[in-house]
Amino acid sequence: MRMYDIIEKKRDGRELTDAEIGFFVDGYTAGRIPDYQASALLMAIYLQGMTPEETRLLTMHMMNSGDVVDLSDIPGATVDKHSTGGVGDKTSLAVVPMLAAMDPSHTFVAKMTGRGLGHTGGTVDKLESIPGFNTALSQDAFIDCVREHGAAIIGQTGNLVPADKLIYALRDVTATVSSIPLIASSIMSKKLAAGSSCILLDVKVGSGAFMKTVPEAVELAQAMVAIGEGMGRRVKALVTNMDRPLGHAIGNALEVAEVIDALHGRGPADLQHEVILIASDLLELTGRFTHEEAKARAERVIADGSAFNAFKEIVAAQGGDTRVLDDPTLLPGAALSRTLTAPQDGFVAHIDTEAVGIASAELGAGRLTKEDDIDHGAGITLLKNYGDEVIAGEPVAILYANDPEKLAIGTKRLTSAYTYSSERPAAEPLLYATVTRDGIVYA
Amino acid sequence: MRMYDIIEKKRDGRELTDAEIGFFVDGYTAGRIPDYQASALLMAIYLQGMTPEETRLLTMHMMNSGDVVDLSDIPGATVDKHSTGGVGDKTSLAVVPMLAAMDPSHTFVAKMTGRGLGHTGGTVDKLESIPGFNTALSQDAFIDCVREHGAAIIGQTGNLVPADKLIYALRDVTATVSSIPLIASSIMSKKLAAGSSCILLDVKVGSGAFMKTVPEAVELAQAMVAIGEGMGRRVKALVTNMDRPLGHAIGNALEVAEVIDALHGRGPADLQHEVILIASDLLELTGRFTHEEAKARAERVIADGSAFNAFKEIVAAQGGDTRVLDDPTLLPGAALSRTLTAPQDGFVAHIDTEAVGIASAELGAGRLTKEDDIDHGAGITLLKNYGDEVIAGEPVAILYANDPEKLAIGTKRLTSAYTYSSERPAAEPLLYATVTRDGIVYA
Repeated sequence: MRMYDIIEKKRDGRELTDAEIGFFVDGYTAGRIPDYQASALLMAIYLQGMTPEETRLLTMHMMNSGDVVDLSDIPGATVDKHSTGGVGDKTSLAVVPMLAAMDPSHTFVAKMTGRGLGHTGGTVDKLESIPGFNTALSQDAFIDCVREHGAAIIGQTGNLVPADKLIYALRDVTATVSSIPLIASSIMSKKLAAGSSCILLDVKVGSGAFMKTVPEAVELAQAMVAIGEGMGRRVKALVTNMDRPLGHAIGNALEVAEVIDALHGRGPADLQHEVILIASDLLELTGRFTHEEAKARAERVIADGSAFNAFKEIVAAQGGDTRVLDDPTLLPGAALSRTLTAPQDGFVAHIDTEAVGIASAELGAGRLTKEDDIDHGAGITLLKNYGDEVIAGEPVAILYANDPEKLAIGTKRLTSAYTYSSERPAAEPLLYATVTRDGIVYA
Repeated sequence: MRMYDIIEKKRDGRELTDAEIGFFVDGYTAGRIPDYQASALLMAIYLQGMTPEETRLLTMHMMNSGDVVDLSDIPGATVDKHSTGGVGDKTSLAVVPMLAAMDPSHTFVAKMTGRGLGHTGGTVDKLESIPGFNTALSQDAFIDCVREHGAAIIGQTGNLVPADKLIYALRDVTATVSSIPLIASSIMSKKLAAGSSCILLDVKVGSGAFMKTVPEAVELAQAMVAIGEGMGRRVKALVTNMDRPLGHAIGNALEVAEVIDALHGRGPADLQHEVILIASDLLELTGRFTHEEAKARAERVIADGSAFNAFKEIVAAQGGDTRVLDDPTLLPGAALSRTLTAPQDGFVAHIDTEAVGIASAELGAGRLTKEDDIDHGAGITLLKNYGDEVIAGEPVAILYANDPEKLAIGTKRLTSAYTYSSERPAAEPLLYATVTRDGIVYA
């Protein structure tokens, strides 16, 4: 088999076989296929597309390029959740302990997650704002923690899907990132390698997301559901609005504090709504409960405090200081702050959500390059979100930083992210569509 | 400017600017742009195409990547001819001295040409079967020879269009060779850098050519004519049949001998017809003669021996032994030969022309890899070509080699290249179409 022939075949729009896709993935991961041939194939895939079966095979070979987590020692359903990345999206932090509390001893969350880059935050970074929290458990300690406490959250291990690391790095410099089969296989290879049997995907769409339109987000959702179901997992995808930041808090410690609020049932309405939605969908995927039962359990674990207690238990099990959960003022803070005010009476007509994410990173809360350090105390609290009414001079956001220069840069960016108008903008849904193996349901 | 943005723009089917194309060509030639970005762009060009203006700009920047031959010291029209490569195509060898003889002191041929690779022969290799012939003249000696004798033929100099060498090598391993804008820019950048003001292109189509169908050959011809005319040259393209080898001889010394026959007016009818066609078209392009006048001159220089004498003069000027022109038996020969005979009564219904070219290379006449040495005496004489009637047992071809193993391999291949039938196949034209700036004329 020759890489040349595989490139030529895809270039001409023909369907690649299992053996051909495996030859590429294995050969590129092993360094036998040069970058210039891989990039030619990736551009051909970008422009000619892939069938659902090709996409599934690509994902499978990527998944098998490194370690595949074995969750067979966990005595029950294993659930996982993935967001394509949004600004202020801290739902994983809330949903993991909720699931642990919703169906103890039967449903488990073995969550592997990533760090943030660019305008979206990473769950690992957020958790690390809790003093002592260890996201680098050994595989055995991870499984033990899941068995004992119902859930654990760790960073991705070194050898999970090495093919994705290599292929993604090449896509990133050859303008081949924004391809549905390539995005879907990148995300799903990691989710499948992480081992859970039930997967809830949150596909964000809008100015703060990689997917800019609902049709392309739905297409990505369909591709990922087809891959997961084709690999014997139960998968559901939500297509949700990222034309506005989720909740009020953007930044690591700020988001942890907001998650604590949400677990107490007093988080911002949009966040509160989304964590209930995701947690109940995820429990329903296990097949152990109807949608109504699952939703009732999601609401109950918030109301009775068991979700918050589960969070505390997980934090303790992973070495974190649980005192910060009872008193979030003990979380890392910022020496400097600045309040942004509305320049006119009216409404918040538009928020450039990506710019909000970048502003937060500029304040120190995120990485603009892979080498950047995170300032866990930096970030933004939005007092006014999309559609909210404002009075001239009224505070719309507070920025936090530990460096005056960063504060100035972030403030300038956040100021330009807000657009005001004298008329109330149309209400936008939080959920656009739900995708399962049975089809698409538009909300 | 960033290469990433250029790849993205072409990926999305948008038109690249002069500056963007120059950034790519100059950056890649200088080694500033990595292979993996160049190959992604080439695949995007392959699949999204290029406008005529983009193709012209690509060609221009490639031309300017190295030396551009200055023919301004030559006191008259300069003409050049290029064939996209065929089996048995020795027309350049005949046409160059014809032009020198057709309009002495006014029309000149400063011909730079290449070596053969794969199934098509190279003019330099053919000339080197003449003992002493020097195809590596200095630039000054080359121009002097053209001025004094009306023509000279040399191999391409080291620094002519370095961008093409690099880009072609990358295309060759990334399945991006067969793209009209990339083929057209590769050929035309070299023709334009070679400096002549009038260019006749012979685009071969059929089983022995890179272009397999008349429509794609016409498209390539149009692209090349548009480039050349857009760069201020006079250009005409012929689209000619390569479903049959041209003439009877395939192999270096054998082809030189057949050219001598053609210059005496006793070459095979198809070759004789094509050299008259090309020589007269080329002279007409200078604008100094009507088509009828040009054709009359082409026929006259054959009839009165002046074309043959011009060939002798050029060979002598370039250090070649002219005795072989008077007595072609002095050319390099072969120790071994084998005669292929017809297995049945009937007609030659099909010749796999590419296989004939490969058979000739296998006999020793060509290079299957860049490192192979040429055996100038090896090759094939076809006694029967497409459509000829045969009787069972009648000789159809003679193979020549200096190595029994090569003779056996070449014989096996040539045998399978012939297909016979009991019915006379339809006559096929030698010329399909003519393309100029005024449009396409189908023959």
